[in-house]
Amino acid sequence: MNKQLILKKRPIGIPDHETWELTSTEIPTPDEGEVVIQTDYISLDPAMRGWMNEGKSYIEPVQLGEVMRAGTIGKVIAANKHPKYKIGDTLTGWGGVQQYIKTNGQGHFKVDTQMIPASKYLGVLGMPGMTAYFGILEVGKIKEGDTVLMSGAAGAVGSVAGQIAKIQGCKVVGIAGGPEKCAYVVSELGFDACIDYKNESVYKAIKEHCPQGVDVYFDNVGGDILDAALARLRMNARVVICGAISQYNNKTAIKGPSNYLSLLVNRATMQGMVVFDYADRYREAGLQMGQWMMEGKLKSEETIFEGIENFQATYERLFSGKKKGKLLLKIKE
Amino acid sequence: MNKQLILKKRPIGIPDHETWELTSTEIPTPDEGEVVIQTDYISLDPAMRGWMNEGKSYIEPVQLGEVMRAGTIGKVIAANKHPKYKIGDTLTGWGGVQQYIKTNGQGHFKVDTQMIPASKYLGVLGMPGMTAYFGILEVGKIKEGDTVLMSGAAGAVGSVAGQIAKIQGCKVVGIAGGPEKCAYVVSELGFDACIDYKNESVYKAIKEHCPQGVDVYFDNVGGDILDAALARLRMNARVVICGAISQYNNKTAIKGPSNYLSLLVNRATMQGMVVFDYADRYREAGLQMGQWMMEGKLKSEETIFEGIENFQATYERLFSGKKKGKLLLKIKE
Repeated sequence: MNKQLILKKRPIGIPDHETWELTSTEIPTPDEGEVVIQTDYISLDPAMRGWMNEGKSYIEPVQLGEVMRAGTIGKVIAANKHPKYKIGDTLTGWGGVQQYIKTNGQGHFKVDTQMIPASKYLGVLGMPGMTAYFGILEVGKIKEGDTVLMSGAAGAVGSVAGQIAKIQGCKVVGIAGGPEKCAYVVSELGFDACIDYKNESVYKAIKEHCPQGVDVYFDNVGGDILDAALARLRMNARVVICGAISQYNNKTAIKGPSNYLSLLVNRATMQGMVVFDYADRYREAGLQMGQWMMEGKLKSEETIFEGIENFQATYERLFSGKKKGKLLLKIKE
Repeated sequence: MNKQLILKKRPIGIPDHETWELTSTEIPTPDEGEVVIQTDYISLDPAMRGWMNEGKSYIEPVQLGEVMRAGTIGKVIAANKHPKYKIGDTLTGWGGVQQYIKTNGQGHFKVDTQMIPASKYLGVLGMPGMTAYFGILEVGKIKEGDTVLMSGAAGAVGSVAGQIAKIQGCKVVGIAGGPEKCAYVVSELGFDACIDYKNESVYKAIKEHCPQGVDVYFDNVGGDILDAALARLRMNARVVICGAISQYNNKTAIKGPSNYLSLLVNRATMQGMVVFDYADRYREAGLQMGQWMMEGKLKSEETIFEGIENFQATYERLFSGKKKGKLLLKIKE
């Protein structure tokens, strides 16, 4: 059988057991021009919370009754005259939270898992890695000597974006929750410092670690941390708006940045980004990051749980912070 | 005697009679290399409110006991071997709220009042006009066919920025307070429409007048209007942060824009500006705007009150909105 996680009810605030329903259908067979993929891993991303909401955003919301959207990687187990893919190919794409994916291949592409483990294609070489790459280079416009401040520094995007900034010759200060993550960010990832937002004043710590101010702030979290960063911008600073995980479960209006007039005082720019805009350059980014990985300059970690039944408990770790690097769920039993 | 308005006490919220003190000293005489200017007009600007606050901003705060900072224009009545200026020259600069200005000429420059009345040099050809010019062209990056939304549309900056956008072939929708101002913005200034924020829902009206969304929002006001504009951005929109008059008298933290994640959804940019950065291009802007004025394409209006004693009552009109175009105080008796 094919277990699928269906969006049953739009959550208000934090999703709960009424949000999804785990159902079972027959394992699909491919029609002509289609393949069926057996899902190996699914990607868990903070952005999923937005996809559950009704209304216009950068992507269509998941409809009620549909399989919950998720990035996936898995092997083709059946093919029916598909022009590009055959049994045994590993495909990554938007397969959704289900054990078997029936698709004409649109939104999927083939990857090589000989050199690089499949899980990396949902992390450092997947959406989070691409977001980090284009966000820090194209939107953040980092240059050598910049002071870069990175929220979500132990997360899938922040860990990669910060390391890229280090490779480019920036001073990089992370922000993460708890001493263990902060130690990881500094000792393993090589950031210059990491601020523990759970145990110190972020505003004061930015002042201490970035005495000249912040040239580029890469924001994955929003809320009070965004405000603290805005208060410490340097002239002509760039603020990359990549996400706002602290606000995604709000039941009321989200907290706007009270210190936004720092953009005026410091002639700074705050710019939003969505990784899909760079789709025609994913290959370029993947090759570059693959090279950095082989040279030992770019590290990545995945936290992997197992079983589609554990989707919700695993998903909650995105917001509780109980994970490091990329959060994945292994689906293949 | 030389009447001077001194900053006596830093205001919390709205400045009141305790904020300033009107004093009198001898009319100064110039030392060698100096001139004395008799102030004709002073400029009243929302930015003044920020200059009264302590603490770092884009410009030093006015110190307690100092003459209140203001843009001025007036005639040189005494000169002592000044290398550039002589009696009878008209100088505009940062003379402050006083009847006579003793200066070595720094921060002042000579203007020609034969063709253009002195008052224009504090308005359309002064800081507000320069702010409008560089804000809409350099930060807003308007191009033909763009839909431009302009808050403070009847004000000194907004009225000019909106007309420049019209000249450049944009569709321009203003936002102003009350039917009289809105009529002025459309019939006199030639905007395509004007939203009366005092009498209609700004959010709904933007939707009606900008059905495709907003390419460039020029923000002079902040607060709820900024949020309404953010909610209606078009893909790759630019938001120019020029001011936030609705927030300047706040006693608590200013209201941050709750809808800032529209920057992400729409890959939009929010950028702050300070006109001083364009000082080396004021001449270019002045020539271009002078030409538009002579061609009848760029209109400007001043609301002028009289008497340094009436500074506070006049200043309050910036925030009550009881004025049109540029607000000036005639100082010369």
